[in-house]
Amino acid sequence: MKFTRNLTMLVDFYELTMANGYLDNDIGNKIAYFDMFFRRVPDKGGYCIMAGVEQLIEYLSELKFTESDIDYLRSKNIFSEKFLDYLRNFKFSCDVWAIPEGNPVFPGEPLVTVKGPIIQAQFIETMILLTINHQTLIATKANRICRAAKGRTVMEFGSRRAQGYDGAIYGSRAAIIGGCDSTACTISDKIFGTMAVGTMAHSWVQLFDNEYEAFKSWAKTYPDNCTFLVDTYNVLKSGIPNTIKVADEVLKPMGKRPKGVRIDSGDITYLSKKVRKMLDDAGYNDVKIIVSNSLDEYIIRGVLDNGAKIDGFGVGERLITARSEPVFGGVYKLVAIENNGEIVPKIKISENTEKITNPGFKKIYRIFDNKTNKAIADLITLNNESIVENKPLTLFNPIHTWKRKKITDFHVKELMVKIFEDGKPIYTSPSVLDIREYTKKELSTLWNEVLRFENPHTYYVDLSYDLWKLKQDMLLKYTTHFEK
Amino acid sequence: MKFTRNLTMLVDFYELTMANGYLDNDIGNKIAYFDMFFRRVPDKGGYCIMAGVEQLIEYLSELKFTESDIDYLRSKNIFSEKFLDYLRNFKFSCDVWAIPEGNPVFPGEPLVTVKGPIIQAQFIETMILLTINHQTLIATKANRICRAAKGRTVMEFGSRRAQGYDGAIYGSRAAIIGGCDSTACTISDKIFGTMAVGTMAHSWVQLFDNEYEAFKSWAKTYPDNCTFLVDTYNVLKSGIPNTIKVADEVLKPMGKRPKGVRIDSGDITYLSKKVRKMLDDAGYNDVKIIVSNSLDEYIIRGVLDNGAKIDGFGVGERLITARSEPVFGGVYKLVAIENNGEIVPKIKISENTEKITNPGFKKIYRIFDNKTNKAIADLITLNNESIVENKPLTLFNPIHTWKRKKITDFHVKELMVKIFEDGKPIYTSPSVLDIREYTKKELSTLWNEVLRFENPHTYYVDLSYDLWKLKQDMLLKYTTHFEK
Repeated sequence: MKFTRNLTMLVDFYELTMANGYLDNDIGNKIAYFDMFFRRVPDKGGYCIMAGVEQLIEYLSELKFTESDIDYLRSKNIFSEKFLDYLRNFKFSCDVWAIPEGNPVFPGEPLVTVKGPIIQAQFIETMILLTINHQTLIATKANRICRAAKGRTVMEFGSRRAQGYDGAIYGSRAAIIGGCDSTACTISDKIFGTMAVGTMAHSWVQLFDNEYEAFKSWAKTYPDNCTFLVDTYNVLKSGIPNTIKVADEVLKPMGKRPKGVRIDSGDITYLSKKVRKMLDDAGYNDVKIIVSNSLDEYIIRGVLDNGAKIDGFGVGERLITARSEPVFGGVYKLVAIENNGEIVPKIKISENTEKITNPGFKKIYRIFDNKTNKAIADLITLNNESIVENKPLTLFNPIHTWKRKKITDFHVKELMVKIFEDGKPIYTSPSVLDIREYTKKELSTLWNEVLRFENPHTYYVDLSYDLWKLKQDMLLKYTTHFEK
Repeated sequence: MKFTRNLTMLVDFYELTMANGYLDNDIGNKIAYFDMFFRRVPDKGGYCIMAGVEQLIEYLSELKFTESDIDYLRSKNIFSEKFLDYLRNFKFSCDVWAIPEGNPVFPGEPLVTVKGPIIQAQFIETMILLTINHQTLIATKANRICRAAKGRTVMEFGSRRAQGYDGAIYGSRAAIIGGCDSTACTISDKIFGTMAVGTMAHSWVQLFDNEYEAFKSWAKTYPDNCTFLVDTYNVLKSGIPNTIKVADEVLKPMGKRPKGVRIDSGDITYLSKKVRKMLDDAGYNDVKIIVSNSLDEYIIRGVLDNGAKIDGFGVGERLITARSEPVFGGVYKLVAIENNGEIVPKIKISENTEKITNPGFKKIYRIFDNKTNKAIADLITLNNESIVENKPLTLFNPIHTWKRKKITDFHVKELMVKIFEDGKPIYTSPSVLDIREYTKKELSTLWNEVLRFENPHTYYVDLSYDLWKLKQDMLLKYTTHFEK
């Protein structure tokens, strides 16, 4: 089920001024190749989790300028009628490749590649970046948080603090892709089947004359699904005693038991240990302890390291905004054009060497060791290259080229799949829950050293010899030019 | 012009479980009062800028459960048919008050107050928080950035790095409310009239055989509106010389001049000084220098303090995500209920004293000194209190009550206005550009000490004696209860 608007006009204005310029200079139909990639993993982590492809496909499938859009653009007094006519009859005709959602991805490799008339391939820059940047950011953050929870339940609770409505809706989707068990975001469940959950707020408890009455009423309404929020007044003196009282007096006679208690404030390590003991002593060792309140991967790791007795975490603002680093810096760069059918690579130079792009129309192989089934490296090649499995292959560091490794016993997976051909969508997205399973499976091919939070091992993203040589030659040509 | 979807189901699931519970316990129609407020200004600042009321009104005006929503909820197997019937015939009937957009707002005071049947007043919590939290966060950040720019042009450039589509669209709106001059977000201009701007990307320059050809083509298409991106190859050796060459050879013969140059990388302080001199020496002292590249209020202040020659800033990811502190922590708390027509105040207790709520149905007066027209303090009172202007009034610190100040020569403004009456919208939002003017005007009533970035003076948000007394009595009653 989709939940889309026509987002054609969600575009940086310069994409439109450029598009008009391409047409005005009769180069709108020149075939161009663009790569979307990122340069750095947020939170100094070792990997990101690709997400957002399904929404990218929806956007590209529904590109359409309305008469109202065209009237608006005409009112700007800078666009030609020829251009406005072009938009009126706009027909998307690009080829697009993307790495499927749930794959671990790394700096420098294309996540999305677009080939098509530059007037179109340029135009879709804003939405490709916005879509993939956002969901990849949140899926990555969610995965870190879930890994910190070590198999305990993690619930996404952040809608109220998200950055805008789609921040909540697609953020919730991305959180599930990253590994969360469920979400508080109802509409996300309705659209994507992300499993919405929820119990009570403090206001429920406050509305009644006392906490006992509040819990009792709740138990009568939800005898099969009863989680009490226990910190409205005092967790140990009131919340837990009332939980036990209602469990004994109301639920037990019905043959039911509470599912859990939630603690939303205070020292959760200390409280969870005390609460666990009180519940156990009362015969409720099956009642789960859920905590929430400004959690992230570091706090979760900390409380678990200190022996907190917690079965599940509700994680809000720090997940849904990726608070510790709320920007995923994906970029979209021209890498080639076609002149008379021949691909001419392009490169973006920068004083900052990490900002130099990889030229040409490319593809990516992930290389797995046959013995361990672990990923050894990703290898970016030119699109016309191919790798023969198990045939000796030398990988080398593209900067420190003396660092090299010869491998023989390996298999490969091509990372990017074609999602649009001649402007038509040709890829069907899996369900969000299936993507979550895929994420887990693919992550298991990475060594733990790449996955750790602090100082992870840098996963190798290497260039084939031909690509490396092309890049060196282009850089040298550039340097020579400015030495003149 | 609106750009809305039906967001009724964008709601935390617990609002639904509670709503079903209220109905099941025959208390759904009990009248409740909720306040939305925040506790802390992001970035350790001294003030926030209220934003998001227009979108809140749209959401509340369009609350409606579809048959598909009801089918989805039924599939959860926890909601009664009586409740689903209630939703099917849902009719919003609350009264809502809000502080109009563009007002400076401060911790502890209600930004939104809702009065109505608890089943409704509770339900709208998620969207009130999401809407106001997001836009207030971005308007506040934008205002800091614009103040750092000291009157220079500030353009919002962040769509590609926003957190979701609405993060871009409404973030752009909020940025304008906060003071930005324009935005790159086209759809935001189309919807809100936020003045979209844009020129070229590096890809435009790369597409041509050389930078000179790229600039020349641009100049021919946009002779009246020509800003060149000058850092694709080398700002000083290539970008500026080519700008001057095209200005001389192409634009001058047409009687035109370039509007500006944009620098998107490198040491912008150093480069801007060199570029200014090169342009001036060539007779182009009217050509503006625009810079972009990971800017925020601190970097802008820094480059200006170091004498950078800059006329305008394009600010992207650090504005649109409020990167330095990407969460606005607004909360929504029950403050009163009605029993037989009598208002019974409610309070939320917490070990953390700053989390204790102000009980009761309230209003807020902003008090201005007649001589300076500066704001002295905000005074929160119970709703049935009134203040007589110029009649001696004693303000006191609600914690350190010996800190008091008697004022006599003052006038007041009531901050909250009624936006819904019996579920009907009764407030018309001003245009975004008018709100921006209003922001400027209202901010000018604050002392500079409150506005500064570091260690701002804390603006006083005081309680009336009656409200203070009510709160003390309720706290004392609570303490006595748990001492037993």
